[in-house]
Amino acid sequence: MGKNLTKRSEDYSKWYNELVVKADLAENSGVRGCMVIKPYGYAIWEKMQAGLDKMFKDTGHQNAYFPLFIPKSYLSKEASHVEGFAKECAVVTHYRLKNAEDGSGIVVDEDAKLEEELIVRPTSETIIWDTYRKWIQSYRDLPLLINQWANVVRWEMRTRLFLRTAEFLWQEGHTAHATEAEAIAEAETILDVYATFAEEHMGVPVIRGTKTPGERFAGAVETYCIEAMMQDGKALQAGTSHFLGQNFAKAFDVTFDNKEGQQEYVWATSWGVSTRLMGALIMTHSDDNGLVLPPRLAPIQVVIVPIYRGEEQLEAIRQAVTPVVKRLRDLDISVKFDDRDTHKPGFKFNEYELKGVPVRLAVGPRDLENGTVEVARRDTLQKEVVAMEGIENHIKELLGDIQQQIFQKAEAFREAHITEVDTYEEFKAVIKGKGGFVSAHWDGTPETEERIKEETKATIRCIPLDPKPDPGSCVRTGKPSPYRVLFAKAY
Amino acid sequence: MGKNLTKRSEDYSKWYNELVVKADLAENSGVRGCMVIKPYGYAIWEKMQAGLDKMFKDTGHQNAYFPLFIPKSYLSKEASHVEGFAKECAVVTHYRLKNAEDGSGIVVDEDAKLEEELIVRPTSETIIWDTYRKWIQSYRDLPLLINQWANVVRWEMRTRLFLRTAEFLWQEGHTAHATEAEAIAEAETILDVYATFAEEHMGVPVIRGTKTPGERFAGAVETYCIEAMMQDGKALQAGTSHFLGQNFAKAFDVTFDNKEGQQEYVWATSWGVSTRLMGALIMTHSDDNGLVLPPRLAPIQVVIVPIYRGEEQLEAIRQAVTPVVKRLRDLDISVKFDDRDTHKPGFKFNEYELKGVPVRLAVGPRDLENGTVEVARRDTLQKEVVAMEGIENHIKELLGDIQQQIFQKAEAFREAHITEVDTYEEFKAVIKGKGGFVSAHWDGTPETEERIKEETKATIRCIPLDPKPDPGSCVRTGKPSPYRVLFAKAY
Repeated sequence: MGKNLTKRSEDYSKWYNELVVKADLAENSGVRGCMVIKPYGYAIWEKMQAGLDKMFKDTGHQNAYFPLFIPKSYLSKEASHVEGFAKECAVVTHYRLKNAEDGSGIVVDEDAKLEEELIVRPTSETIIWDTYRKWIQSYRDLPLLINQWANVVRWEMRTRLFLRTAEFLWQEGHTAHATEAEAIAEAETILDVYATFAEEHMGVPVIRGTKTPGERFAGAVETYCIEAMMQDGKALQAGTSHFLGQNFAKAFDVTFDNKEGQQEYVWATSWGVSTRLMGALIMTHSDDNGLVLPPRLAPIQVVIVPIYRGEEQLEAIRQAVTPVVKRLRDLDISVKFDDRDTHKPGFKFNEYELKGVPVRLAVGPRDLENGTVEVARRDTLQKEVVAMEGIENHIKELLGDIQQQIFQKAEAFREAHITEVDTYEEFKAVIKGKGGFVSAHWDGTPETEERIKEETKATIRCIPLDPKPDPGSCVRTGKPSPYRVLFAKAY
Repeated sequence: MGKNLTKRSEDYSKWYNELVVKADLAENSGVRGCMVIKPYGYAIWEKMQAGLDKMFKDTGHQNAYFPLFIPKSYLSKEASHVEGFAKECAVVTHYRLKNAEDGSGIVVDEDAKLEEELIVRPTSETIIWDTYRKWIQSYRDLPLLINQWANVVRWEMRTRLFLRTAEFLWQEGHTAHATEAEAIAEAETILDVYATFAEEHMGVPVIRGTKTPGERFAGAVETYCIEAMMQDGKALQAGTSHFLGQNFAKAFDVTFDNKEGQQEYVWATSWGVSTRLMGALIMTHSDDNGLVLPPRLAPIQVVIVPIYRGEEQLEAIRQAVTPVVKRLRDLDISVKFDDRDTHKPGFKFNEYELKGVPVRLAVGPRDLENGTVEVARRDTLQKEVVAMEGIENHIKELLGDIQQQIFQKAEAFREAHITEVDTYEEFKAVIKGKGGFVSAHWDGTPETEERIKEETKATIRCIPLDPKPDPGSCVRTGKPSPYRVLFAKAY
């Protein structure tokens, strides 16, 4: 198997699309804009789910499940929400098909028209807050800390595997609180969870911030976000956590009796990350040889490839390797011994490089004589020869080291791609050339934000959390600005 | 909290509906036929998923994800499949909403009509086999052993929580094989997995069998099933595993080159269990006091309720109980110490009985003096006073014992509800009166099967696997029959 990957420097976008397909992560389906997540890609997503799910539960959340469909009228109840979400979505209008009378196949049965159309959920605030009205009466029912793992649909016109698909998988948290302060604290707790997960599990450094009003979630009072930097200098929003104020409680009439016996509207948050994280993972670490996966998310952490001629040599290698495999598994390291006789070692090396397996061991007859193993790490492509005795501890350390190093490498890249600029000329030059985040002053108006976007395609990715006071002048209008914000072109 | 549950003997159906809601398992949503699975119910479902998922992976299967939507034309490709599935389903016809011109709200944008309607998957054979065509070229690509956890929609007119809902959660396995024998072996392996899971995890005894042609899955050559018996004498189909022959391979043109270089159609299976299992779980074990859960699936296995007056007593109990909680958790037993001061012990006892927590410990001041704990088991409601020292081992054994005993109790009930009959009078009397499975001779024709169904509402639940030869005469027509089959009224 030749990899034949387009180089990143040639065409980054093409490199990404090819890599996703060739590494067996996902592919387009016969349904417009919908992807098939292949077993190898899904195994990574399962590891993401497991890591996040544990963090949600450790912070007191429970999972539940709400309907796929949302009655059209629900969407209209929160005014800004409907503007943001009710437009491009899948609409169910009928509930039956029938055989065509002319025998030409099956057709929609016009007699089975729904009285009210159902929308395939683009996000579930409305159906969930319609439910919470029944669940919340008293302050004793609060906080309500619920998460759902689900599929959602947004009818995107231009789709790309993982990054923007009509259907995608995600988790959406929806919490209800007695006070504004508690709800804000919840939104911030989740931002922490997301940032910790991105950095420690995915090895993807992120900047925490808030969105400008123009980039906020439809229906939110404040949107917190984590923003990552891809290798092509474009930013990627990796997760959002919204403080919703009392907007949905008011829209769905969700009140509670407080300790003083007075009725109040409930305070809310919602937050989500999606299979888009797969895109961030791929684009942060991978190279022209294929995927580079952080050990914590790699479905196979170690692969052992035997170098042999004939069944006798293979058998000798198998005997030497079997106890190593066992000792690795005892350390909770996932390991695959690839003894397929249908493919040569070179083919296998290529394949595991393409698939981003963090550590590759190669064992041949000479290794058996010397009691050694060749150890190759995927991130740096470095090789070393190591004693087989006690190799499991070496590998455990190595995996920890790789996890750390790919994060540091990504962080160094990100740091090198934050450019402070003070003039609009510089601004445009950096956005057009070097890329990355541009740290610049902005006058705080949506008009200027919009004009900059039109002129440069750069958007305000976030107002970094707790910005240090640093008064200056807006890069576009010269008006006063209290601190810098981060601009970038974005996925 | 009074439980106020209707008694099973009064109205079994009402008892079930009340129990599902009062035990916080699920409730109806604002969307017709779609349920909300509440956190406590979902926690049980997660345990089912985890158990099954491990069994699938241990038998070589991988998870993947395929689109929610199926183009209408795909459904027509397998003739018998479309007859079975294309009728009652949710049809997406448009992809956009817009503001009504008269300002009355949002309406479907008629300009955004899909060229081809999309069906919300009622099951995924068609979209998956359309994908497999690209994945399978050679015998080296086989077997392909894939499972998907997903939501599906079937537009049911009469719905009941967990048992029959328009949207439900399930897993669907879809495998591809080089030979007929391998595919049949796969379908049987999965039947084993399902039966083992039902009996060992859920404590639900099942009969393994095959369906008659009339009850087969649409598109299957053979449908294997597991059938359980509920406390009201009605059967419940708890899982099915289908040998699909080459039907879908032919419909979607999926061929492979065999070892001899000849092109052949691929052999297939599909198999699934759903949130319906929750219904089977509830109806097999629960009683007039509420849920009875098998320890392996109970979100909380042990609850500790302090009996106290004043904060001082509570603190003393808390100190005595804390090390017990730790030792139980060290044994992987999930335990909750309910020190809420807003509710009295009697209320809590009721609540945990209703929610089926397998073991309840009560600790009061006198227990502290004596170094004892009151241990109550949910299944038999028996109580005993046990030394606190070493109680964790006692509880571990007790949980194992409960797991076994609720299975045995259900099995004894099931055995007592299999009645052999040789006349149609007896048949009708048992079906109408005692209920349960009726083991009777049948002439093997769909006409007789249909007539019996019309006359008694009983259907053939299955032809038990490996029936012992036992020639006789059909209970309805007197024609010869090679062995008995199992009839019952069913959910």
